[in-house]
Amino acid sequence: MRILLINPNTSTSLTTLLSNAARGVASESTVLEEITAARGVPYISTRSEALLAGVELLEILAERGPEYDAAIVAAFGDPGLGAARELFDLPVVGLAEAGMLTACMLGKRFAIVTFSTALGPWYRECLEWHGLQDRSAGIFMLDEAFDDIATVQGDKAEMLVVLSNRAITEGEADVIVLAGAPLAGLAQHVRERLPVPVVDCAEAAMKQAEALASLRPAPPRAGTFRRPDPKSSIGLAPVLADYIAHRCATS
Amino acid sequence: MRILLINPNTSTSLTTLLSNAARGVASESTVLEEITAARGVPYISTRSEALLAGVELLEILAERGPEYDAAIVAAFGDPGLGAARELFDLPVVGLAEAGMLTACMLGKRFAIVTFSTALGPWYRECLEWHGLQDRSAGIFMLDEAFDDIATVQGDKAEMLVVLSNRAITEGEADVIVLAGAPLAGLAQHVRERLPVPVVDCAEAAMKQAEALASLRPAPPRAGTFRRPDPKSSIGLAPVLADYIAHRCATS
Amino acid sequence: MRILLINPNTSTSLTTLLSNAARGVASESTVLEEITAARGVPYISTRSEALLAGVELLEILAERGPEYDAAIVAAFGDPGLGAARELFDLPVVGLAEAGMLTACMLGKRFAIVTFSTALGPWYRECLEWHGLQDRSAGIFMLDEAFDDIATVQGDKAEMLVVLSNRAITEGEADVIVLAGAPLAGLAQHVRERLPVPVVDCAEAAMKQAEALASLRPAPPRAGTFRRPDPKSSIGLAPVLADYIAHRCATS
Amino acid sequence: MRILLINPNTSTSLTTLLSNAARGVASESTVLEEITAARGVPYISTRSEALLAGVELLEILAERGPEYDAAIVAAFGDPGLGAARELFDLPVVGLAEAGMLTACMLGKRFAIVTFSTALGPWYRECLEWHGLQDRSAGIFMLDEAFDDIATVQGDKAEMLVVLSNRAITEGEADVIVLAGAPLAGLAQHVRERLPVPVVDCAEAAMKQAEALASLRPAPPRAGTFRRPDPKSSIGLAPVLADYIAHRCATS
Amino acid sequence: MRILLINPNTSTSLTTLLSNAARGVASESTVLEEITAARGVPYISTRSEALLAGVELLEILAERGPEYDAAIVAAFGDPGLGAARELFDLPVVGLAEAGMLTACMLGKRFAIVTFSTALGPWYRECLEWHGLQDRSAGIFMLDEAFDDIATVQGDKAEMLVVLSNRAITEGEADVIVLAGAPLAGLAQHVRERLPVPVVDCAEAAMKQAEALASLRPAPPRAGTFRRPDPKSSIGLAPVLADYIAHRCATS
Amino acid sequence: MRILLINPNTSTSLTTLLSNAARGVASESTVLEEITAARGVPYISTRSEALLAGVELLEILAERGPEYDAAIVAAFGDPGLGAARELFDLPVVGLAEAGMLTACMLGKRFAIVTFSTALGPWYRECLEWHGLQDRSAGIFMLDEAFDDIATVQGDKAEMLVVLSNRAITEGEADVIVLAGAPLAGLAQHVRERLPVPVVDCAEAAMKQAEALASLRPAPPRAGTFRRPDPKSSIGLAPVLADYIAHRCATS
Repeated sequence: MRILLINPNTSTSLTTLLSNAARGVASESTVLEEITAARGVPYISTRSEALLAGVELLEILAERGPEYDAAIVAAFGDPGLGAARELFDLPVVGLAEAGMLTACMLGKRFAIVTFSTALGPWYRECLEWHGLQDRSAGIFMLDEAFDDIATVQGDKAEMLVVLSNRAITEGEADVIVLAGAPLAGLAQHVRERLPVPVVDCAEAAMKQAEALASLRPAPPRAGTFRRPDPKSSIGLAPVLADYIAHRCATS
Repeated sequence: MRILLINPNTSTSLTTLLSNAARGVASESTVLEEITAARGVPYISTRSEALLAGVELLEILAERGPEYDAAIVAAFGDPGLGAARELFDLPVVGLAEAGMLTACMLGKRFAIVTFSTALGPWYRECLEWHGLQDRSAGIFMLDEAFDDIATVQGDKAEMLVVLSNRAITEGEADVIVLAGAPLAGLAQHVRERLPVPVVDCAEAAMKQAEALASLRPAPPRAGTFRRPDPKSSIGLAPVLADYIAHRCATS
Repeated sequence: MRILLINPNTSTSLTTLLSNAARGVASESTVLEEITAARGVPYISTRSEALLAGVELLEILAERGPEYDAAIVAAFGDPGLGAARELFDLPVVGLAEAGMLTACMLGKRFAIVTFSTALGPWYRECLEWHGLQDRSAGIFMLDEAFDDIATVQGDKAEMLVVLSNRAITEGEADVIVLAGAPLAGLAQHVRERLPVPVVDCAEAAMKQAEALASLRPAPPRAGTFRRPDPKSSIGLAPVLADYIAHRCATS
Repeated sequence: MRILLINPNTSTSLTTLLSNAARGVASESTVLEEITAARGVPYISTRSEALLAGVELLEILAERGPEYDAAIVAAFGDPGLGAARELFDLPVVGLAEAGMLTACMLGKRFAIVTFSTALGPWYRECLEWHGLQDRSAGIFMLDEAFDDIATVQGDKAEMLVVLSNRAITEGEADVIVLAGAPLAGLAQHVRERLPVPVVDCAEAAMKQAEALASLRPAPPRAGTFRRPDPKSSIGLAPVLADYIAHRCATS
Repeated sequence: MRILLINPNTSTSLTTLLSNAARGVASESTVLEEITAARGVPYISTRSEALLAGVELLEILAERGPEYDAAIVAAFGDPGLGAARELFDLPVVGLAEAGMLTACMLGKRFAIVTFSTALGPWYRECLEWHGLQDRSAGIFMLDEAFDDIATVQGDKAEMLVVLSNRAITEGEADVIVLAGAPLAGLAQHVRERLPVPVVDCAEAAMKQAEALASLRPAPPRAGTFRRPDPKSSIGLAPVLADYIAHRCATS
Repeated sequence: MRILLINPNTSTSLTTLLSNAARGVASESTVLEEITAARGVPYISTRSEALLAGVELLEILAERGPEYDAAIVAAFGDPGLGAARELFDLPVVGLAEAGMLTACMLGKRFAIVTFSTALGPWYRECLEWHGLQDRSAGIFMLDEAFDDIATVQGDKAEMLVVLSNRAITEGEADVIVLAGAPLAGLAQHVRERLPVPVVDCAEAAMKQAEALASLRPAPPRAGTFRRPDPKSSIGLAPVLADYIAHRCATS
């Protein structure tokens, strides 16, 4: 089974964090490959940056999707996930989606814990898009500057443990979801210090991508994620324009 | 007061329909200018097409926004509205948003009536993004092919009247919102034949854009629509990259 | 275009505050006239007072409504709004409704900020009646006595700024809605000191009443706001009894 | 224990129906007295009529309330209930409230079944005010003219049985709530013909009024139903004006 | 009228508290009998303990139900209530259900106040099962160990008063529901010291059981609480197995 | 990795269907073992039967749980799932839970499709317990008798395909969840004939149990699923009583 992890951020350091965490829980027979966005921002944190990243995601999937059994959108707000699910035939799972749905099996309500308040509005829209507000115990964010997204997980580990404990006591969370690509892999280091299950989204996404690949769902020909009819376009990347115009094989 | 109507579809025929309807209700002192997307699809109807259109919207606003007192995103699903509101300082209103909020003052629940089932999933996400489900009586769609978006409003007028009446009797709608840029201007022709108020979204957007321009709200420096901190980027349109990097004046 | 602002409180000082604020944003061609309730309480703050004010509103509209293109119910809880909308043909907009819907175009969630805890229960029912809870960041109230409703906005301006800032930081509000007729006009004085857009409900109501008057919606003959069938009555004000019995022209 | 049944409709025939049904289930030691509105409409069916009836209710309670241990607002939409509960010290229960809460103990979801579509909008607002939408299986209404509210329950009994069965099969209702004062007493005649429990609201209100009177709850001095501070007023009925001004003993 | 109070806890001291409180408000003609669970835990506080208690409840009702006009499940989380309502013909009311529904007639939102955080998760599921979240102001729990469930209400009375006042001021509760069988009877001792109505669930359950017995609802033959078709079983208590197999008269 | 599939129905034919379907998608290194309830009913379809099955589940887990890395509750309504999750340390996943959460990654809204109306009330409570109503397109049930649960999936395959298509067109479902242990394995036979992805709950449960086992979540020591404090009990199965009293090692 071949899985493609797409990092829609342009930072390759994040790609490394994400793929290392994912590989740590992959099944033996799984082949994981990764790709980093060529355009966009080093680290997505807002609606507008997610919009830009979403287009990059579609171009990557149009080009590379057909080679894989499933794909992971490896940024917590799941940029472009709905568009990708609608356009392409292979199963696609989002980092946030995988983390939150996995958390649902470990408790009634999960807290989303992350390292910057800048992420809040985007994450909240992601939570609402997935219709999982009833399962959420809130979004808990550190309210401090950080130096470098490549090292933020280590630099802020102590503070994230404190914040997670606050989410448990004040937010009545049953599960902690460590959110944001820069935190990939952190769960293994802090889980002993938290009294509830901790979900690493990169790990969860790996397992959910494997699950979807194993179940081999048929691409929808009806419903709200059926592939749109062919359409002409102007000014798009050729591989995407071809795909939208149905001028190429389905992935 | 200067208002910019941005048609995120690439069809200039739609731009004409939209601006004609908007001008019909504009205040005397309002100057309305319009612009048509240079890239994208002729007529947006899905999540993926809306994603592509959203990026085009941002580029247009980065380039043209500073000349205006308010802008209208003139496609019913409000592509890129949240991103635009976050990024730019001028008030921006969406076609769907304006139509739905105006409908709220005319009844308890409004029905969204449109000409194609292809639009349903995207419109529903738009409705949910605006948090107005409690005010909605449903999305009612014609389930037939159409020939040309430039003439669909005339070709399907009879069927849309029938469908609207069904929305009133079966959906218990108090108000009809005719949805989709290709229907701009239709309300004036069918309102006599419907027993409840009918909202033309282009008209509503014109009045709401004027209202926002009159109230001159300060751009948010806090809250979820505060402008993101400056960020570097790769591969974006230069005017947008400059804006995101705070290398230019605020609009 | 002729707009009638109805102050359902019996205090003429409030009528002055309200009409001054409204006139400040009116279009050049708009004629605004105002009327103050002849019966009721100086300042409505509870459900029972709103009930009494609602009847007064209906009598005023039965008598004066036909002369105008739209009317404003100028008390934040929108007393009698649903009854008025059902009974009369002209568009009627509530102060709370206009403020909240306008706020929806400026952010995801608005905070209602007001000067007395006595108003909370009534305002909450108003918010719920409008089905806008998903857009609300809460109702924030000063918990102190005030001397005079005619001067409360000036007396409490500092405290309201502090409270609004708390609504932004603790309530995560994107927009501040200054609520209550006694605060009409205050927004202009405090907006520079708040980091998010501030909505003055009298201003918003002026613009929304103009919008409705421009759109000239047809009075509903179906839906939940269709005019009730003629009915006899006992003991009502003659002009209202005649209207309910369909013994007079529609407004 | 002394209970006052207040019929806010002006039809004495309805008062008879209501009090007969209520007496049929009263405890031996209960004294039930009834009063009919002196002003208003013969039969309330809309928001505006309910508003007028609410004021009449307050006047009756200001005058007669102190003699009783509890009161019943005997119209299904519970006109003026919130205002009454806020203003007066004795427990007050609404016909709709009693019927719906009693139905909650007999099944998961109840259907509201009534004899005229004219009642729908008002009943829906009542349901929403009580926050019981999650327990509702819908409002089912006959869509036909009726001759006389005094005899409508007999004239339409067959059709109401058919409609109730539709509410059970199509609406998946566990309980039928026969709604509207003109249907008081009907449940006894049709219950054998319906396969789920049938709630007569006048019976339910009688038992709930007795329950409240037995429990003798203290009048709230805090919370959203605390009695408002004394206030001056203009033009109100003297007994009500005195009560609002705290110029009389608490009921 | 004969009412059976079933204490699903195995502590007879709780049975005494519950039946004393219930008798204090019973109508003269009511005969109240009580029974204590023979199997299970002394005091139920979690989902798993409630599951075990639910089975005991079914066995008691299969054996004793037919002798009574109504039954009370006398533990706040209403263990087995849905199963009992589905299986048996007599009306059954839960302690939590009765307390919460009665509270609904005394205010908009009620706070559930109890003596141990251990009860929270179970109580919350109970609240959600009843679909009454919109009426809840939250669950407020003492966070301290207690010595003995037989005396906890006296030992913690002061602290529960403090906590209730916090629920009123911070939770904006209109009504206090003292929750948990060990608090039965406490309301009478503390009501003078709380500024809002206080509901004793055992009292409320007594009155609601009487109300249901008076209304004599027909057992449902349709809807979600219709009696299941006969079924064979293995290893159940014979009286319950017979009942499930329809080998005995309906209760 | 060792997984225990617990069939809480007493029919071994169902155990075979379930374990065959699960094994079909298991990873190579997974060891799946199954156990059938010794007490209860052949096929659970109601709240009361689920209550009885829940106790059996707890006894099985107390006895066998410690040998496994994760367990599956293999009946669609997830009987006893919350109790098991609270009481035991190993991850436990429900058949319904796994099916619904997996479906969430394949579309916005899933339809639950099953073979008997008898299952509806229990399934609905399960859906609500999981807080997934916003993702549900409804529960679709065949309304016909069936001969034998061992063969119902074959006997009704055609009708279930028709019903699923109705769920897609009328219910606007994006995904079909075939619900009920007797339908385990059916998805493979009908997926070609349905235009949207079809989820087999036994397959989904297998993959989700593997995912949880791989992630090795720590047992909660806080939150609403923390293990209850030790408690004495009367009359329970000794292994369960010991577990509840903390007289044995944690599983």
